[in-house]
Parts: sequence; structure tokens; C-alpha cells
Amino acid sequence: MPQSLVDLCLSVAQRAKAASVELATVSTAAKNAWLLASADALLANADAIAEANRRDVAAAPGFGLNAASIDRLTFTPARIRAAADGLRQVAALPDPVGEVREGGTRPNGLQVLKVGVPLGVIFFLYESRPNVTVDAGGLCVKSGNAVILRGGKEAAHTNALLTELLRAELPKFGLPADAVQAVPTADRDAVGHLLKLNEFIDLTIPRGGESLIRRVTAEATMPVLKHFQGNCHVFVDAAADLDMAVRVIVNSKCQRPGTCNAAESVLVHAAVAEEFLPKLGAALADAGVEVRGDAETCRRIPAAKAATDADFAAEFLDLIVSVAVVSDLPAAVAHIARYGSKHTEAIVTRDLAAARRFVAAVDAAAVMVNASTRFNDGFELGPGAEIGISTDKFHARGPCGLRELTTYKYVVTGDGHIRM
Amino acid sequence: MPQSLVDLCLSVAQRAKAASVELATVSTAAKNAWLLASADALLANADAIAEANRRDVAAAPGFGLNAASIDRLTFTPARIRAAADGLRQVAALPDPVGEVREGGTRPNGLQVLKVGVPLGVIFFLYESRPNVTVDAGGLCVKSGNAVILRGGKEAAHTNALLTELLRAELPKFGLPADAVQAVPTADRDAVGHLLKLNEFIDLTIPRGGESLIRRVTAEATMPVLKHFQGNCHVFVDAAADLDMAVRVIVNSKCQRPGTCNAAESVLVHAAVAEEFLPKLGAALADAGVEVRGDAETCRRIPAAKAATDADFAAEFLDLIVSVAVVSDLPAAVAHIARYGSKHTEAIVTRDLAAARRFVAAVDAAAVMVNASTRFNDGFELGPGAEIGISTDKFHARGPCGLRELTTYKYVVTGDGHIRM
Repeated sequence: MPQSLVDLCLSVAQRAKAASVELATVSTAAKNAWLLASADALLANADAIAEANRRDVAAAPGFGLNAASIDRLTFTPARIRAAADGLRQVAALPDPVGEVREGGTRPNGLQVLKVGVPLGVIFFLYESRPNVTVDAGGLCVKSGNAVILRGGKEAAHTNALLTELLRAELPKFGLPADAVQAVPTADRDAVGHLLKLNEFIDLTIPRGGESLIRRVTAEATMPVLKHFQGNCHVFVDAAADLDMAVRVIVNSKCQRPGTCNAAESVLVHAAVAEEFLPKLGAALADAGVEVRGDAETCRRIPAAKAATDADFAAEFLDLIVSVAVVSDLPAAVAHIARYGSKHTEAIVTRDLAAARRFVAAVDAAAVMVNASTRFNDGFELGPGAEIGISTDKFHARGPCGLRELTTYKYVVTGDGHIRM
Repeated sequence: MPQSLVDLCLSVAQRAKAASVELATVSTAAKNAWLLASADALLANADAIAEANRRDVAAAPGFGLNAASIDRLTFTPARIRAAADGLRQVAALPDPVGEVREGGTRPNGLQVLKVGVPLGVIFFLYESRPNVTVDAGGLCVKSGNAVILRGGKEAAHTNALLTELLRAELPKFGLPADAVQAVPTADRDAVGHLLKLNEFIDLTIPRGGESLIRRVTAEATMPVLKHFQGNCHVFVDAAADLDMAVRVIVNSKCQRPGTCNAAESVLVHAAVAEEFLPKLGAALADAGVEVRGDAETCRRIPAAKAATDADFAAEFLDLIVSVAVVSDLPAAVAHIARYGSKHTEAIVTRDLAAARRFVAAVDAAAVMVNASTRFNDGFELGPGAEIGISTDKFHARGPCGLRELTTYKYVVTGDGHIRM
């Protein structure tokens, strides 16, 4: 008798929970050995992975994917090698489980340690890039968590094989095979069933666009860590080095326009608009970027189109940028509060007071001063590989690496201490 | 025209959000001056507070409160002084806002700081003790958050006056008056309306019993940090110092039985049950504690009553304890996994390996080795005053003090850095 989808989801969640209990006390050495063996397994099976991926790519037009999305879906040999390297990098990172984060001895002799422990079971929803399957599997297991993966249906064959390869290596190192599981992607109802299972799933991480995030937030019964889009701004202050501002904007916009930390909007202080906008217009034209501007921008950059309100709210993920002139720094902060997504916001200025005001007033995971928005990334900020960039405030903000996938417990040791 | 409850709740939440934006950049000096002035205001108005409290106490039997609950509700002059002292202690604690938690300079010269920032608006629901109104107001404002307080209806008059006194001091130090607001307690619907307003409220903290927690978790559209009951265990290992075990159990149970970190259940390793249980029975009898035990416990402690399954799940908050004999340490861990509330769990043992196994395997905010469960408390563990003890895993576990009421942002400073 075939299992119903509800029973299947329940079984996946229960097995993940059981695996997470085992995984919480597994040695770092075993987890690292699994990561390295999984990297080898990806390379040894590169042909089979490429073949599975060809089936997904062939089916992609049927899912309405455009050329850019098909490119993201394609798992080239170089990308397979990069995914394997990613697992090796995770193996090289320190284990956040067992890490003593704070500690000391109280006046009464009681030793108090705050020790890193896994969250438990993570339900991770993501979209088309197959390398995310490998990255997420590696990061969750290294941080002692069991993971339930739910990739996009357009990558179903590739993801299924990748999951199978990661799972096959687990028992070889004494790790529970159910530490990594995937749920069927064909049926959207599976997500709804899993989001009810807060008895077994400790955290849901949706990484994707607005409709995914909205659905997960509405239905989840457990904590959710949103990895939402980035509508990132660069504000060119009155005291900006204008050439630096052009370089920072072009890099923020163009270095990799399809990423969430790419800039989507530029705000220009009115005091420098006349001098700055023509420079900016020329540089963006050279870089092939379409400008959608407010009235003043369109006056100074003749090639610009008139921006709509929707343009200022948009995450283009493309060579398009919205540009507005603002009367002063508070107006820039107000514009960002209205349209921003609390991801990454930048100011270009030589004025220390302006930098301090902007940093304090802007509510975002990362605030950049005289630096590209593209630096909001686990590798660039230091902690290394990440499962994504949190746009939530609670628990973790910005890059979510190994430590952000854990929590802590207090371990308190005495010799018969009682409270007076 | 009277405002509808929906409009009132919306207005409270919107004003809290506006206040939180102002509060995020207020100086530590201003917040501390407000705390000290509020302490003075409590003392100056002690008679009026006592009078308001007398009205609540007089009405308490109508709400079905028993003697212990009426005692908790009563705001004696000593308790008013203690609440004022609490505000002074919060003033003396370091400000978590602006605290640089981690920081460094990347190889490319980019300075990366992880800086403490407020969460925003906190909706705090709690039960009868009026001092919690003062503590929560002080902790939230010091940590830069606006707070919406919702105390128990049985403390309505006392809480209304306390909130008014705290609010009256805010504008004197340039702080927004709406940093502290209260919602009407008479209407249970207000909670439901507020739990929908995730656009304005960043976090809900329910502190109380199962029905409150269950309702808030089901209805909230924003993150929730649960301060649930404590069904805390003390496990007496085969290698325990049995006299120490008696002292730790009596203290855990009796030092303040009405608190969430009091022990509710004792587990005894079978190897020492015969020797230990009579000692324990005598000590608990001396302390006036009723024992509800499994079959073996009842054989060894003749005064014990037979425990039901519900007794092992109960948070008695009274001089009652459940006792069971377990075959070994894994059986103790399994019992705790089944009945515990992830609050505080203790082991008494001289065996280092047993201590390590117990600490690793038990999933709780705090694990005590040879120490009373009563030490899971902000003052005892170090960070100082707390809004309660989180039984959640996400964001904050254990005592929630000033730092746990904040999040962080990355502040990244360069001199025109672009990504290659």
C-alpha cells in the first residue's frame, strides 16, 4: 500500500529528529571525514551528476525558466568541483558544537560555561541552484543538525542524486543516514504538512522570493529564519568622494547582479546631484546598466527612464538600477526604511558624523561605509561558508554560517552548591 | 466616539514602533537617568501603589486566586523597595546597544564589527506578580526596545499605576513616552489583535503557564520567545555522593518552591536506590515535602504516595516532588526527554564520564553538575537582571537579560573597497 503524503512527511520528520539526537554527540572528526568523503563522491560521480542535470535542464523550458535561470540550474563540471571544494572548506572550519562561547567562575566557585549545541532538525527550502543542496547538507551536518531539504522542482533529478550521494557516505563514518533527507518536490502539499510538525522540526529556513517566504511565514508552526531578497541601496552623501561613489555603485550593481547583496537602488544627496549624476550616468552606461530615475535623475541622465514606485521596491537581479535624489541624510534613511528589505545598505561619505548617523539609523543586517554592498557574504565578513543571508532580526542576522545554525546551553558545575 | 479595540491595539503597536526608532539611538546616560528617576518615583508613590494594590488584592478572591497566588499579587512596601532597587541594578549594567561583540580587520583592510542593536518592539505577556511590570519596563527600555505590557487582570490596578509612573519619567530624559505602554487586561481579544501585528511588533514573550504559551504560539505572526514552566529533574547517579545529593535535592525543591527553576522530580540510579531513598525520604519529610513515587520508591519511602504519569509531567510549584528509580543514566536521560520541559536538569555524581554523558545528552537550557537547579537564574549565572528564563532554543536560552533582548548588525567600513 503506498504511503500517503502526510504519513511520508511525518516519517521524514520523525527520522530526522531521531538522527539529530545521534548527531548531537558525534565527534568533529567523524563529521569532517564525512565531508571529505562526500567531496570525493561528488567528483567520482561527476558524470552521473551531469547526466541527471541534463535531464533537469532539458525539462527547464517546460517550467517556464528563462535563460538566466537555466544558467543557474546548470551544474557544469567546474560547478561540481566548486561544490566539492565547498565541502572541504566546511571540513576545515571550526566545529561550533561544543565551542565554549563564554565562561567563568562565580564568586561562590560555581563554574558557568555557555556551550554551543545544535538546533536539532532544520527544514530548508530553496530554489534552483543545485550546489545549494551540497552546501546546505554539509553545513547542517557539520553543525550537528539533521536537515530536510526541499529544493526546486526544476532541479529535481540533480538534487535527488546529490542527496543520495551525501546520504550514502553517512553510515561509513558512524553518522545516521537520516541526517540528510529530501522531500518530494513534485507535491507542494508536502511543504504544508512539514510546516505543521513543530514537534520534530526546530527551525525552517526559506531562501527565495516573496511568495515562498510569505507562504512559509504564514504556515510555519516552528521558528522561521527568512532569507529574503535584498533591495540594497547605496547612498551618496553630500560629503562623498564622487569617484569612489561611482566605483562602489558600479561594483555593488555589476560585480554579480543576480545575487541578493547586489545594489538595486542609488540615493543621491541633492547637494551633489548636479555634479554626480552625469558621472554616474556615464559609468552605468559603460557597464550596460539601465537607469530608472526620479524626475531630477532623468534631467541629469538623459538616457534614464522614469522610475515607478514599483521600481524603487524592486529587486531587479539584473543590470537595472533605480536612482533617486534625496534632500538630505534623514531623507535617505526614510527612503530606505520604506523600500529596503533590511539586507545591506551602504553610504559613501568622507564625513564621520554622517557615517555614524547612517550606521545608527539604518535598520539592516549589514551597513557598509565606503564599501560595496557585495561584501555582505560569509567569506568576505569572516565566518566562512553560509547557508544564506538572514534578513530576520531574531537569532541570526546577515550571513548564516555554522555558528548561526546552532544554539547554546549553560553547563554549570559545582561540588554540591546550594542556593542560600 | 470610543475607539474600537482593534483600532486601539493598532494605535498602541504603531506608537510603540515609532518610539522604538527614537529609542534605538538614545544615549545610555539618558536611559540610566530614567531608570534611577523611575526608582525614585516608585518610592515617592509607595502609598498610592499600596492603595492600588489593595484594590487588586480585595478583588482577587473573585478571580478565584488561592492564598499562594494572592501572596504573589501582594505588593508590600518591601517588594516596592525591591522593585526600585531592581531598576537601579539595571542602570548599573552595561548597555548592550552599541556593544561591539566581535570585530576585526579583513586581509583587504575592511573593518568588520558586529554591533549590538535593539530588537525593536517587544510584546510581553505575564502573570500576577506586579514587580514584573517594573522589571520588564526597565529591561526593555535599557536594551533600547519599546515594550507593550500585558499583565494579568488580577493585578490591573497595580500594573496601571506602575506603568503610569514609568511613563511619566520618560519625557523628562528625552525618551519617547510610548517606549512603555500597557494594553487593557480586561479584554482577552486585545492579545489576539496584537499577535497579528508583525509589521510593528518584533518579538512576543509570553511568560506563564501552558494555556497562555499555547495560545500565543498558535496565534502569533511574529517570533515568540517562550518562558514556559520548568519540570526540572535531579538525577542521583550510581556514583553520587549521597549526602550531597540529599542537600542538592532539598535545596532545589524547597529553597523557593514556587519558581520555575525549582526541582519537581528526582530520578535515582537503581544501584543506589536501596541506600539512598530512605535518606531522601527522611530529609524530605523534615522539609515538609510530599513524595509521589514509583513502586520501588514507595517500597523504600513508606510515606510516599503512588505517582501517576501526570505527576511525572507536573510542575507542582509546591512542596511536592515526584520520585522514580531508573535502571541507568541513559534511562534517566530518556525519562527527562519524555517529561522534561528543557528548562534545568541536574546530575549529582563523582564520576566524570557520567557527568560528561549527562551534560551532552540532556537537551535543556541549563545542565547542572553537583549544583542546585535553583542556580539557573540571571543573577546566579552572571548576566544580572532578566525578564525571565527562556525554554526556547532559538535566539536565547535560559536567563534572558539585556543582551538577549537585542540583536546585532554588521558595520563594515572601508575606503572605497570593491569586490574583485
